[in-house]
Amino acid sequence: MNNYTRRNLKGQTLLRHRNVSVVIEKINVDGPITKREIVNKTGISFAKVNTITSSLSKLGITVEIGKEESNGGRPSSLFNLNPNYRYTIGCQLSHTRIHTIVGNLKGEILFEEMKHYDKSIGKEAVIALLLNSIETLINNSGIPKEKFLGVGVAIAGLFNPNNEMTFPFPHLVNWGHVSFKEIIAEKFDLPCYVSNVANAGALAELNYGEGKGKNSILYLNVGSGLGLGIIFDGKLYQGVSGTAGEFGHISIDEHGPLCECGNYGCLEALASTRAVVKQAKTQVKQGVSTALLTMANEDIEKINFNMICEAASNSDKLAYNLIDMMGQNIGEGIVTLVNLLNPERVILGGTIMCASDLLINQITNIVQKRALEIPRRNMDIVFSKMGNYAGTIGATIPIIERFFQYQVNE
Amino acid sequence: MNNYTRRNLKGQTLLRHRNVSVVIEKINVDGPITKREIVNKTGISFAKVNTITSSLSKLGITVEIGKEESNGGRPSSLFNLNPNYRYTIGCQLSHTRIHTIVGNLKGEILFEEMKHYDKSIGKEAVIALLLNSIETLINNSGIPKEKFLGVGVAIAGLFNPNNEMTFPFPHLVNWGHVSFKEIIAEKFDLPCYVSNVANAGALAELNYGEGKGKNSILYLNVGSGLGLGIIFDGKLYQGVSGTAGEFGHISIDEHGPLCECGNYGCLEALASTRAVVKQAKTQVKQGVSTALLTMANEDIEKINFNMICEAASNSDKLAYNLIDMMGQNIGEGIVTLVNLLNPERVILGGTIMCASDLLINQITNIVQKRALEIPRRNMDIVFSKMGNYAGTIGATIPIIERFFQYQVNE
Repeated sequence: MNNYTRRNLKGQTLLRHRNVSVVIEKINVDGPITKREIVNKTGISFAKVNTITSSLSKLGITVEIGKEESNGGRPSSLFNLNPNYRYTIGCQLSHTRIHTIVGNLKGEILFEEMKHYDKSIGKEAVIALLLNSIETLINNSGIPKEKFLGVGVAIAGLFNPNNEMTFPFPHLVNWGHVSFKEIIAEKFDLPCYVSNVANAGALAELNYGEGKGKNSILYLNVGSGLGLGIIFDGKLYQGVSGTAGEFGHISIDEHGPLCECGNYGCLEALASTRAVVKQAKTQVKQGVSTALLTMANEDIEKINFNMICEAASNSDKLAYNLIDMMGQNIGEGIVTLVNLLNPERVILGGTIMCASDLLINQITNIVQKRALEIPRRNMDIVFSKMGNYAGTIGATIPIIERFFQYQVNE
Repeated sequence: MNNYTRRNLKGQTLLRHRNVSVVIEKINVDGPITKREIVNKTGISFAKVNTITSSLSKLGITVEIGKEESNGGRPSSLFNLNPNYRYTIGCQLSHTRIHTIVGNLKGEILFEEMKHYDKSIGKEAVIALLLNSIETLINNSGIPKEKFLGVGVAIAGLFNPNNEMTFPFPHLVNWGHVSFKEIIAEKFDLPCYVSNVANAGALAELNYGEGKGKNSILYLNVGSGLGLGIIFDGKLYQGVSGTAGEFGHISIDEHGPLCECGNYGCLEALASTRAVVKQAKTQVKQGVSTALLTMANEDIEKINFNMICEAASNSDKLAYNLIDMMGQNIGEGIVTLVNLLNPERVILGGTIMCASDLLINQITNIVQKRALEIPRRNMDIVFSKMGNYAGTIGATIPIIERFFQYQVNE
């Protein structure tokens, strides 16, 4: 026991002090790091840093991973965060699948499971699948239950940050308002943090991916919808009711097709994977010659976005033109983002990854031609290296942040 | 002299301490306020608050404006900021005029001057006009020079926040890169803060206007261009190179008219006052019957936006339809902002104020019909009550903020 440790009612040692969070944060971001470097970077006195790092090491939160090269004096110990001190569960709930992971404090994936479902199974069955995935992963991981800090659920839809209920899930009938917080607490006695897939992806890119070290990034998740995660000044911006980033519903053509949302020419109605698949089916029905029909075993309804990507990269004219037009439309949307928000970087992710090579040229080309010069010169566009994992990893970040910020239990 | 005061090299008393800024900020925002309330709201001890308020009162920065109603004990003094302890100069440089004010620490206008110019006079003459306005106002105000904290210049164009040079001014040939910081320092030996008119307007609305007490507001300045000032989490967001908010160059119609920026269907090419005047002239030339021709003394080239506003409110069909279409287009742009940024409030200002009654219905109507339900239900759209003053008042805010934050000279 020292100034920074307390026992709670269950007799667990708690570390509760602002300085503790600051030191952990420093070790997490800058580790391996010496005590002297922590002092220099935080302004906390050496004596205090010494006490805190001792406590952290004793608890196993940090590990000494050797000594710094010395130039004369006694070599100093290098501290690193022990990424496996505690674990997290992350889930990404999309319209057709559930991706679940066991992650650690560094956002590394230790175990994972992907479940596909048909939306006709209904709400209760989808929730049961999700709970089952979590349970299976916890059991199969062999990690003691008390080492899990919580569950993060990233949904491909909106939720209300005030009561943490999801709004009616798009494309899932009778979904209504669902509280994962209550469902998870009841089943696993673990705290649950709900987020939107695009916001979660943005956090993952900011912490571990293409946005690391940047202040102002936009993460664009293109799949059956188009979501945008907005990082301003290093923090997630969610808007006044938590719905900021509805990129799929910005209109780029007021004379364009009517969107489900009631507006015309929305990006989602033009450039989502769902829209592109629909365009492909329509053209195939009209008799346009394409390899897609063979790939789908002559069943037009079986054509999917992956087939279009594959056909396009094999120079199938119909598929190529559809991806080309998709890139133009996404590019148009990004022009709006660049002019309006002057970001440092735009990161593209989601199920469009399979067409990244074809898309990046078209998108970059449109942005080069149409965005204003000054913001354009100061930004770049890259594809995520996390693929579909960004949203799932990002779902665990609120859990980790809370752990670092508020308390560390033995 | 106490813990919070120092003398500088010139023998002036300086107040330099974080607690001093906190107390001044509290008195500024919440005044009239008692010492006890300051203690409760800041957590600073009563003894320290007492010392600081004494120093502030002695220096004249705050004033006691009476006693609080007492319920038994000794009534407490109420402190308020002395708004006229120091003064600021604010300038708004638009494409055809220069508005200059003397303001105080509460953003109140004490003196002002408006100068119109024809852009053919060239860069040197425009700068000379601006310097002359400042000099005249300082001299005529009778305020001692040393009471001025600095000059804020809000320009209707872009500037580079790194070197505080303006970028080439749109619509002003041979403007090049201009450093108002250097020009003002040389002429008046005062610090200068450059900002963009829309950003300055957003700050003015946040501090003194329709955005007061709100966290997430968008200030839309519609004139010959369309600029957007973005306030997120109570702070101005400027983007990575300071150009965020180029609302005029978001495209709402990819098949629309080519804009000067190289994109198609930009709002600026459809819904700026310049675009609407151009549309009016074209239609008058085509022989459409309208009162505008008489109002312009039969000289089509003399038609201006104010005439169109006046004719529209008198039910001139051509003018009415143009304003109606302008409202639709601005509304379309706001739909994008609402879906993308989920703001608490959108505030409209600039030279469109003359048509506010006609525009607000059309804009609200489009947003009602086309924006997503959740963000739409959580926001409103209002017109600024500051008219064209917002940008000029806002130009002085960085000066005031710096004064409150960093040091207070006797």
